[in-house]
Amino acid sequence: MAIKVGIYGAAGYTGIELAQLLAAHPEAEICFLTSESSAGKTLQELWPLAPAFPLSPSIDAPLEAADCIFLCLPHTQSAPRAAQALAQGIRVIDLSADLRIDDPAEYARWYKVAHPAPELLPVPYGLPELGRDLLVDASVIATPGCYATATLLGLAPLVREGLIAPHTPIIVDAKSGVTGAGRTPKVNTLFAEVQGDFSPYNIGRSHRHIAEIEQVLEADGLAPGGLIFSPHLLPTDRGILATIYVQTSEPEAAQAALREAYADESLVEVLPPGQLATLRHVVRTPKAVLSMTAVNGILIVVSVLDNLLKGAASQAVQNFNLMWGLPETMGLIPTQVPQETL
Amino acid sequence: MAIKVGIYGAAGYTGIELAQLLAAHPEAEICFLTSESSAGKTLQELWPLAPAFPLSPSIDAPLEAADCIFLCLPHTQSAPRAAQALAQGIRVIDLSADLRIDDPAEYARWYKVAHPAPELLPVPYGLPELGRDLLVDASVIATPGCYATATLLGLAPLVREGLIAPHTPIIVDAKSGVTGAGRTPKVNTLFAEVQGDFSPYNIGRSHRHIAEIEQVLEADGLAPGGLIFSPHLLPTDRGILATIYVQTSEPEAAQAALREAYADESLVEVLPPGQLATLRHVVRTPKAVLSMTAVNGILIVVSVLDNLLKGAASQAVQNFNLMWGLPETMGLIPTQVPQETL
Amino acid sequence: MAIKVGIYGAAGYTGIELAQLLAAHPEAEICFLTSESSAGKTLQELWPLAPAFPLSPSIDAPLEAADCIFLCLPHTQSAPRAAQALAQGIRVIDLSADLRIDDPAEYARWYKVAHPAPELLPVPYGLPELGRDLLVDASVIATPGCYATATLLGLAPLVREGLIAPHTPIIVDAKSGVTGAGRTPKVNTLFAEVQGDFSPYNIGRSHRHIAEIEQVLEADGLAPGGLIFSPHLLPTDRGILATIYVQTSEPEAAQAALREAYADESLVEVLPPGQLATLRHVVRTPKAVLSMTAVNGILIVVSVLDNLLKGAASQAVQNFNLMWGLPETMGLIPTQVPQETL
Amino acid sequence: MAIKVGIYGAAGYTGIELAQLLAAHPEAEICFLTSESSAGKTLQELWPLAPAFPLSPSIDAPLEAADCIFLCLPHTQSAPRAAQALAQGIRVIDLSADLRIDDPAEYARWYKVAHPAPELLPVPYGLPELGRDLLVDASVIATPGCYATATLLGLAPLVREGLIAPHTPIIVDAKSGVTGAGRTPKVNTLFAEVQGDFSPYNIGRSHRHIAEIEQVLEADGLAPGGLIFSPHLLPTDRGILATIYVQTSEPEAAQAALREAYADESLVEVLPPGQLATLRHVVRTPKAVLSMTAVNGILIVVSVLDNLLKGAASQAVQNFNLMWGLPETMGLIPTQVPQETL
Repeated sequence: MAIKVGIYGAAGYTGIELAQLLAAHPEAEICFLTSESSAGKTLQELWPLAPAFPLSPSIDAPLEAADCIFLCLPHTQSAPRAAQALAQGIRVIDLSADLRIDDPAEYARWYKVAHPAPELLPVPYGLPELGRDLLVDASVIATPGCYATATLLGLAPLVREGLIAPHTPIIVDAKSGVTGAGRTPKVNTLFAEVQGDFSPYNIGRSHRHIAEIEQVLEADGLAPGGLIFSPHLLPTDRGILATIYVQTSEPEAAQAALREAYADESLVEVLPPGQLATLRHVVRTPKAVLSMTAVNGILIVVSVLDNLLKGAASQAVQNFNLMWGLPETMGLIPTQVPQETL
Repeated sequence: MAIKVGIYGAAGYTGIELAQLLAAHPEAEICFLTSESSAGKTLQELWPLAPAFPLSPSIDAPLEAADCIFLCLPHTQSAPRAAQALAQGIRVIDLSADLRIDDPAEYARWYKVAHPAPELLPVPYGLPELGRDLLVDASVIATPGCYATATLLGLAPLVREGLIAPHTPIIVDAKSGVTGAGRTPKVNTLFAEVQGDFSPYNIGRSHRHIAEIEQVLEADGLAPGGLIFSPHLLPTDRGILATIYVQTSEPEAAQAALREAYADESLVEVLPPGQLATLRHVVRTPKAVLSMTAVNGILIVVSVLDNLLKGAASQAVQNFNLMWGLPETMGLIPTQVPQETL
Repeated sequence: MAIKVGIYGAAGYTGIELAQLLAAHPEAEICFLTSESSAGKTLQELWPLAPAFPLSPSIDAPLEAADCIFLCLPHTQSAPRAAQALAQGIRVIDLSADLRIDDPAEYARWYKVAHPAPELLPVPYGLPELGRDLLVDASVIATPGCYATATLLGLAPLVREGLIAPHTPIIVDAKSGVTGAGRTPKVNTLFAEVQGDFSPYNIGRSHRHIAEIEQVLEADGLAPGGLIFSPHLLPTDRGILATIYVQTSEPEAAQAALREAYADESLVEVLPPGQLATLRHVVRTPKAVLSMTAVNGILIVVSVLDNLLKGAASQAVQNFNLMWGLPETMGLIPTQVPQETL
Repeated sequence: MAIKVGIYGAAGYTGIELAQLLAAHPEAEICFLTSESSAGKTLQELWPLAPAFPLSPSIDAPLEAADCIFLCLPHTQSAPRAAQALAQGIRVIDLSADLRIDDPAEYARWYKVAHPAPELLPVPYGLPELGRDLLVDASVIATPGCYATATLLGLAPLVREGLIAPHTPIIVDAKSGVTGAGRTPKVNTLFAEVQGDFSPYNIGRSHRHIAEIEQVLEADGLAPGGLIFSPHLLPTDRGILATIYVQTSEPEAAQAALREAYADESLVEVLPPGQLATLRHVVRTPKAVLSMTAVNGILIVVSVLDNLLKGAASQAVQNFNLMWGLPETMGLIPTQVPQETL
């Protein structure tokens, strides 16, 4: 019997992607999709390849009909909806920032607003390859941000093994496709602004994803405050590439640590020496790919993923699968079942 | 002594382009730029290569300080401002649709709104290569639309010479870059919507530029109603390419008519046989380029121009030059004056 | 037991796409992939998402191990290979132009070279939605060109029903993504040439796909020589959009004919009135989508498909499935088989 | 009397750009353009906006008719041609790598080939904003590489003032548009490979521009070997953006040093605090733009330029002007000479 799912905020890029994944998921059945701005239309009217499922305003969504909801809402709107669902025994996969930061004060510091539902915190952080114990059978999971996933996959194994030289900066030079900025129309994401341009923004220590990245790394033993994070906007629709520079006295051990961390993972791949990760490796796939280049006491890790999939929707499906005791990659990797047709 | 000019609506793509042209124009001096949404900023803050001239709300613009204003406003907003300026003896170059249609009823039919200033009509139509007599010393000029310019340059000489077979359809399959849709944020002009897509819109007989195209061609003798106009949105920022199909029993005469029509023009070029016009010929230039291919009683005219320049801002400057008795291409074609520096 | 397949010319864009489809096909098993220029590498080294299957020079390919070969070779190279395979009882899906034209003289006229294996002609033309009888159990199938598929899907039902006004031109204004020009490096398909440009080529009656389009339409009753075909190169990687203009005295009947022709097809969709087909409907899918706009005695059919899929590789898989008695869409439309995992 | 100039290798992207600049330069007169692959055509046939000047094979070029030649040839081909010209008293602006490295052994180490004309070395390095004394009246100038210019403009003033913390790595994460890879067709610069991708290459310490960058910085006092240089290929045609990370104990002094270094320069601009440099600032201009962000003992300098202009052709024109005693920006910045027309 299918698990009934609803998506709040289905008309954004992540919601559209998630709706397509869930529509094709063998064990999920969509029972509602919400959108305030496009209510009354079907999702397919917004995006031809999406399911022809009607969008309703959230006030009309039959929350109680769902076993599990996915929240693709702006921060501050997401946590209250999560609280409402959890109070009714409905499980929650949150894709906003609301439930990622354990400490409400830290949330307030980065998001410049009081946390809307501090009683829910802390919530398991849904980056399965860095720890899936808390995700199995969880009632609520906070799905990481796209930049955070790309960065943490490259750094966490190194931090855990103590392989980054103390008191040295960690530099993450990150580049993201435009869908990372959302589907709400703004001048700076218009085609004629982005084509032919490439631009840094919020560089240094001002991008909000630093909060969740450092929370994870500090739990793994990193000293606070050493992360430099420089995002840039790429003239392409999808994909994140983070070029990560760490100083290490043990470059061989560092590379081995990354290789071992993901040796048994089907959705994270470490390329062999001499190859470099590119967006082409991951766009439109649920995978992250890493490559490593060691030189002069610096390890350069290139980490790539599709911001809408491993950086959002497909990672949410991994979390959904873990939450419900399903195989983690169900609905993400085609299983080639020979058809009984001959 | 410089001619003092103001631009209403300077923060759109056409306004930005026009401000750059006027800032470099030897005889013009900008005295104000208006923008409601970006008032308080300089134009350079919106577009790094534009002049660092402040934007003011139109209510604060010193209209009376100007000798001539350029209107890059939405239709219905433009004509009242034109009327106000003309009443004060200030000349007007309008880039909106408001003053292009001679008959207010026709305007109302296409634009679904009563004409805001019918007493101004008719106004000289500023496509100099099709007739510049009325433009010299004019007090007000209506600058044509981008699709209209591309289409009329290809068709008018044929219609004038009676070279299109009667009772046959004229098919204009047009493709435009995204800046043609303006700088106001909308979902359908976001980068992630446009990249990788190509889409027709308003095809058949529903695009508003049909009104001004047919007005010109009917004055030149075309029977009404035969134009099929199919615009498409291209995944590029600038440029229009119109592929025009007409039936003719005199393909040689038709080609000769086009060639002769522009033989003495410096901003419209007809390519020699065997060459085809492409966006590359015209993007970021004030020129239109035409090519011709005759086959089976059909003449295929490809007409290209930069929608922001010959389709808007540089054509407005041509009109400005004619209006003020200046050389028509002043400020548009670099004059190579040897510097006295050796 | 799987059908063993080999691909000649696997390192081009069509070959890469086809290899991905066949690697995931439930009843196919790749036994070789050939490439002269990339022999010794795996296909994945050329394209990260392609299977890690080695490429061999064609001389080393174990032809006799295959049950069926796919030919993604240039014209003139394909037919001799087809003849060799057929002589050994190996079936052939040809994606080149070699086997599409029934009459070798016509082939010679369009391709400026003698037909390399006229004894193979005629060969069933593999556009299943226009006729699949000859494809079932065929030993060899000629898969149509990408432009031809888009054009024929829009025109053939109209021609069959006699709904196009006699002695009127049929105008096909077609636009293709760059992969249609192949993966062999040429200046005109470099990124820096294509971005920002849009260009017609071979317009009128000179593009070679006219031969196969007219062959099909003339068999359906069209008078010869009336097709005007104008291809343009789009600044995008994949997708074809053909805007087709036909004159008809029965626009309602024409729309009904198209609608009925594809009513039972799962891979060709006719959009409801008011919607227009765009590349977004089809890119990365095996489907073609049509829309219709009737105005002034003209029917405008917009026909879209992915040039590498319905225009090449997925259509080849449809043909493969028909040839081998498999469900026609096997390997193309995900069948959601619930996994036995709960 | 005009200075007669010839360009060897005029059919590449740099050559095309340079020919356009020189055709419009008030004191230069093109006397030949060479291309082996396109000889017999005009440059305009390759690029519609370029001058309609014929291309000849280099063997037919009237070298002796030139006062000055520009070499846009591959390395190893350039130096011999320079030697030939200099022997005849003809001055040389080299845009290849051949004359940039003072030490032939170092050249051989990076370029894996013996230097073709070591007797010419050393040659003045033509980055005027870092030192123009040796360029004035020079007979030969080596124009820097595009990555080198962007990197050196950001780093040299800091090194000169001793403001980078000793024994700390300097990390340059650089991103370049595709024209940086040249106009010779290769698979990896095809449109369909680049669109939608973003890819690192030669990261760490393997890119050849490191040689000239370190040569300059070591002359300014930098300890050897600390530069990490990671280039990436951007899906756009033009522009380089280098995000440069240096550790400094004096971030205020560092920012002041950069600001002062370029305070009097018309072609290098340092943005005010709070603004970030983007490609939009520089593409299709002869300028470089820098921005600075200080955080946690790290100074992040973003340096942008157009790789074909300040990174190649317009910098070559600066050098030409200095060499011939002309105003350095002649032909690069429009001088608004009021026309005597009213």
